[in-house]
Amino acid sequence: MQSLVAVDWGTSSLRGARLDSTGAVLEERAFARGILTVTQGGFPAVFEECFGDWMKPAGSLCLIAGMAGSQQGWMQAPYCPCPAGFEEVASQLSWVEAGRIAIVPGLSCMHGEVPDVMRGEETQVLGALQLLNLQEGLLVLPGTHSKWVQVSGGRMENFSTFMTGEFYALLRKQSILARSLPEADGDFDRPAFEQGVSLALRGSSLLSTAFSARTLSLFGRMDSAALPSYLSGLVVGEELRTQPLVPGADLVLIGSDTLTQRYEDALALRGISARRVGMQASWHGLWKLAQTLDTREP
Amino acid sequence: MQSLVAVDWGTSSLRGARLDSTGAVLEERAFARGILTVTQGGFPAVFEECFGDWMKPAGSLCLIAGMAGSQQGWMQAPYCPCPAGFEEVASQLSWVEAGRIAIVPGLSCMHGEVPDVMRGEETQVLGALQLLNLQEGLLVLPGTHSKWVQVSGGRMENFSTFMTGEFYALLRKQSILARSLPEADGDFDRPAFEQGVSLALRGSSLLSTAFSARTLSLFGRMDSAALPSYLSGLVVGEELRTQPLVPGADLVLIGSDTLTQRYEDALALRGISARRVGMQASWHGLWKLAQTLDTREP
Repeated sequence: MQSLVAVDWGTSSLRGARLDSTGAVLEERAFARGILTVTQGGFPAVFEECFGDWMKPAGSLCLIAGMAGSQQGWMQAPYCPCPAGFEEVASQLSWVEAGRIAIVPGLSCMHGEVPDVMRGEETQVLGALQLLNLQEGLLVLPGTHSKWVQVSGGRMENFSTFMTGEFYALLRKQSILARSLPEADGDFDRPAFEQGVSLALRGSSLLSTAFSARTLSLFGRMDSAALPSYLSGLVVGEELRTQPLVPGADLVLIGSDTLTQRYEDALALRGISARRVGMQASWHGLWKLAQTLDTREP
Repeated sequence: MQSLVAVDWGTSSLRGARLDSTGAVLEERAFARGILTVTQGGFPAVFEECFGDWMKPAGSLCLIAGMAGSQQGWMQAPYCPCPAGFEEVASQLSWVEAGRIAIVPGLSCMHGEVPDVMRGEETQVLGALQLLNLQEGLLVLPGTHSKWVQVSGGRMENFSTFMTGEFYALLRKQSILARSLPEADGDFDRPAFEQGVSLALRGSSLLSTAFSARTLSLFGRMDSAALPSYLSGLVVGEELRTQPLVPGADLVLIGSDTLTQRYEDALALRGISARRVGMQASWHGLWKLAQTLDTREP
């Protein structure tokens, strides 16, 4: 395989990397050009503007993961149903330009009668499996919509979405709690965060625990400056509470250092340890998918 | 006792009733003059404008329940700690005008190290106890911030707040789910509501179940018009899930017909029946408090 242009095109951001034939990252770029900023039909121009120079060499290949494959994206890439591994995902690419630019499908799975979906995280999971040489495990991608992905035999068997980051933002900025919290987040307050996690783990619903951010403030039992970290602990703890985790489970956290560190702290309060993988997981996933293509299409 | 002017002055609305010496409602009024619409120092004028004529007879008494007793209200009425019944609440009125206009204190209780508070609901509970001739039971006041109140020996022993109505509004209007839901709520869709309740009762967190409103729509498994009722079922079911309810418990729902009917439907899915009391509970509570005053201050 020649070099690969790996792109993660999400709702609010656009990131890309140029990888050499061994998968090493030669160069990275990031733009505030998430799909929400691109008008219908505008995707080819934005792509050319951001990565056109990288695509000049003959035989260049670009794989794009993320919301670029959604209804509001460049081209709708139908969801690949679980279970899915490298083979299944690679065989369902949607080619924007045959042999040159493809969009990686998102994944779908069913919880009884209720569907669940992801776009972009499947590529990070594939990359993390590759980086850690894993075939089994539980992989967690914290974020606006956190994903918990069960992997077995190298394939994603099923996954669940938690709107943790979005709930945090709603409560932080739009709810009655906003009146008790400071305008801007200050430094992260780890004891307050852990106090929030602990309360959430004790078993009531976030509907109830969230109100404590107001009452603790009302009764002068917590400084306003600590409340954002406390609220973060409440939502993260709520996400962890309903997970059937056993100590010693092989848990992998994928995401930014800041966020995975918080989850690692919170998991420790449940007696669970975890390994962490950074955002480079996307590049490794896309690179391995490109390799899978090479071996299938000589 | 002479007649009583009973007032429920909340965050967004102001309601009043003139009661005769038997507690019967002679006349009711409602104004869009919640405390958020009143500037500091403006409370006496708004009160005079809305109820001045009712207060003209010599010896008139007015009791006010609700957020008028909060920091942002007419006069701060310190919380009365649980356990509290008619005697405790009546002995801690805050008099705006001695012997003429008083504000009923809210209640506080502790869950371990975490305080909880209410303002206004304590009066509705007292009224419902009076109306139903109850000394024991679990009383539920659905709303923006639902309250679950445990009563024993005629006194409120403790209570818990659930931000159910506020979460619904945030998810309905401000979250990613708003993109799937219709602009305006249509008719209530009871099967969709019950489907939401059932999913929530099965045990995952609202962080996770809420996402199903998006995916069911994405996969064409639920009409957009049914989604507001479904989402309502998800939040109400979440509120009910964590309650330690046993079939046959003496549960009383207090509130508007629309809302208590939904909770009655949802409780039925857990095999629990409930009695319902309307918004007149406030007037009965205030009337009984006035009576308690009479017997204590001859």
